[in-house]
Amino acid sequence: MKAYDIILKKRNGEALTDEEIRFFVKGIVDGSIPDYQATAFLMAVYFRGMTDEETVTLTDAMMRSGDTVDLSRFGKLSVDKHSTGGVGDKTSLIVAPIVGSLGLKLAKMSGRGLGHTGGTVDKLESIPGYRTDLPADEFLSQVEKTNIAVIGQTGNMVPADKILYALRDVTATVDSIPLITSSIMSKKLAAGAHTIVLDVKTGSGAFMKTPQDARVLAEKMVTIGKACGRKMAALITDMDTPLGSNIGNALEVKEAVEVLRGKKNDLYEVSLALASNIAALALELPLEEAKRRCEDAVKSGKAFLKMKEWIASQGGDETYLDDLSKFPVAKYAYEIRAKRDGYITHMDAEKLGLLCVELGAGRRKKGDAIDFVAGLILNAKTGDRVKTGELLATAYSSIPSLDAVLDDAYEKAVLISDDKPTAKPLIYDVIF
Amino acid sequence: MKAYDIILKKRNGEALTDEEIRFFVKGIVDGSIPDYQATAFLMAVYFRGMTDEETVTLTDAMMRSGDTVDLSRFGKLSVDKHSTGGVGDKTSLIVAPIVGSLGLKLAKMSGRGLGHTGGTVDKLESIPGYRTDLPADEFLSQVEKTNIAVIGQTGNMVPADKILYALRDVTATVDSIPLITSSIMSKKLAAGAHTIVLDVKTGSGAFMKTPQDARVLAEKMVTIGKACGRKMAALITDMDTPLGSNIGNALEVKEAVEVLRGKKNDLYEVSLALASNIAALALELPLEEAKRRCEDAVKSGKAFLKMKEWIASQGGDETYLDDLSKFPVAKYAYEIRAKRDGYITHMDAEKLGLLCVELGAGRRKKGDAIDFVAGLILNAKTGDRVKTGELLATAYSSIPSLDAVLDDAYEKAVLISDDKPTAKPLIYDVIF
Repeated sequence: MKAYDIILKKRNGEALTDEEIRFFVKGIVDGSIPDYQATAFLMAVYFRGMTDEETVTLTDAMMRSGDTVDLSRFGKLSVDKHSTGGVGDKTSLIVAPIVGSLGLKLAKMSGRGLGHTGGTVDKLESIPGYRTDLPADEFLSQVEKTNIAVIGQTGNMVPADKILYALRDVTATVDSIPLITSSIMSKKLAAGAHTIVLDVKTGSGAFMKTPQDARVLAEKMVTIGKACGRKMAALITDMDTPLGSNIGNALEVKEAVEVLRGKKNDLYEVSLALASNIAALALELPLEEAKRRCEDAVKSGKAFLKMKEWIASQGGDETYLDDLSKFPVAKYAYEIRAKRDGYITHMDAEKLGLLCVELGAGRRKKGDAIDFVAGLILNAKTGDRVKTGELLATAYSSIPSLDAVLDDAYEKAVLISDDKPTAKPLIYDVIF
Repeated sequence: MKAYDIILKKRNGEALTDEEIRFFVKGIVDGSIPDYQATAFLMAVYFRGMTDEETVTLTDAMMRSGDTVDLSRFGKLSVDKHSTGGVGDKTSLIVAPIVGSLGLKLAKMSGRGLGHTGGTVDKLESIPGYRTDLPADEFLSQVEKTNIAVIGQTGNMVPADKILYALRDVTATVDSIPLITSSIMSKKLAAGAHTIVLDVKTGSGAFMKTPQDARVLAEKMVTIGKACGRKMAALITDMDTPLGSNIGNALEVKEAVEVLRGKKNDLYEVSLALASNIAALALELPLEEAKRRCEDAVKSGKAFLKMKEWIASQGGDETYLDDLSKFPVAKYAYEIRAKRDGYITHMDAEKLGLLCVELGAGRRKKGDAIDFVAGLILNAKTGDRVKTGELLATAYSSIPSLDAVLDDAYEKAVLISDDKPTAKPLIYDVIF
């Protein structure tokens, strides 16, 4: 078998065999297929696509390219969630305690933030003492004890994806449905959970700009996950506007705590929907019953207690969660005020995410340091009526003299006009 | 400017600017753009194509990536021909003396054979003493003196093509019209001739399998050459059947001499058409007048004299041309005979070319040694009626005991059946 023939076959629009796909993935990982053949193949896949059968094989071959987590000790109770990434998206910090309080087992590996999107691991590290680098045995025994552990990527998980993603990133082959699917799903499958619920974001702050595109990706991922023997659901949720009001690592932990203590907003709604779908699948409950249990978990305070138990057992100082004022505050706070009367008709979530990177809350490139206290708190969001001089947002940073920069950036990201915008759904659909 | 953005733009089907294409070619040559970005770009070009403007710029940028030959001293008299490659295609050995005898200046760099197709440089090296490695000054002074010099590729000509072709060859991106065009035309333009006539082959032994595909390539190359200020024509000629009767290096030199001494066959017709078109363009003559002069050059023996002058001045022993029996003969001659009565309805020229590689006449990979005396002489070609036991071909080789192999290979390459095939054109069209 030769890499050339596989590239040619895909270029010509033919479906590859199981054997051909596994040969290619193996060759990429062991170096017998050079990068320049891999990228030509990736571009051919971009143009020709892959059938569901091919995508299943690609995902499975990638998943098996490195270490996998064995969660079989938890039977059908092991669960996982994954978001395609957004701005202000701290749902994991809320969903984990809810489903953990229902007895489900969430052994989660999360990523760090890059570009306009944040990462759960960074957010958790803003809690003093929280360890994101547990060794495998401690990781699993913590899940056994407290139902939840959330750590950073560890071991040699899915090396095929590391190689392929690095190549896609520099060759304009990221936005291909089978390649996105296999990249996300190989990692989720390697992480071992029996039930996986995906949050596929759509809108200005998401990778998938339209609900239609998000649906195509969601359906493909659900199909592939089910074909690999997992229970799957995917929610298509709005990321045209940032989720919740806080953006930035410590600020997002604070808002997650507020929601677990009863604050009701879009963040609560999306978190509840994710948790309900996880519970419905894993506990084999009707969705309404699962939703009721999740609401109860928040109302009763059990979810918040579970969060404190999880954070404490992972080394974090849980007293910060009881008293949010313990979190340090940024040296500079900048108030951004409305320059005219009107409705907020559009917020560009990606631009707001990038603004937070400027404030110090995110990374331009991998390995950059981040400032946990930096970020934005939004006082008004899309659809709100505002008056001249009204506080739109407060920006927090360790960097002085940002007033003019912020005013300008905010004006470019947030559109105020006379007409009330038509409301968009927060949750477009759930794909099973 | 970033390579990523250029790949993305081409992937999205947009036309690249002059600046972007030159940036890409420069980056490939100086190594600032890695191979894995180059191949993703090439695959994007495969799918999206290039406008004529883009192809002109790509060709020009590639041409300027290394050394070029300055033939300005010859004014409008400098001419060149190029064949896209075939089996038994020794037209250069006939066209060069014809146009040289008319006073035209052919300073030609030719390639070596690879796979099923031969190369002019190999063929010439079968003449004892012939030097294919003249230094630049000697090359040009020989053209000045005898009107003809044919040498191998020399110097750092079109390094961009060497890099790109090597990458295309292993990534299934060879058969893209703009990439083929820029590859061929950048080398032809760098070789400096004012008039360039192309022989675009079509059929089983050609890269372009159909006359339609060949026409697309021919039109694109003529367009690009004219846009770069050259006089251009392209003939679309048959390569479904090998050209002439001899295949193999010394065997082909012999047949070229036979044609220059008056043998009339398909090889003569194609060579005459190529020479006539070159003469018509370079001497600004009506085609009929050019053709008459070329025919006269052969009839009068002037072209043959010119061939001897050229070969001798380039160090070759021209007495071999006067007495073809001086060429060494292969150790083994194998007669291949018809197994049934009928018409030869199809010959697979590529398979016959590969059979000659087996005999020792060609190379499987670059750098392989070749056996100058090996090859095939065809006694019957497509359209001929043959009887059981009649001699179809004689194969020459230094390898013993090939009878069974040859019989089998010939049977797979040559179809004999009851119905007389409809004759195909030898020359499909001439594109100006």
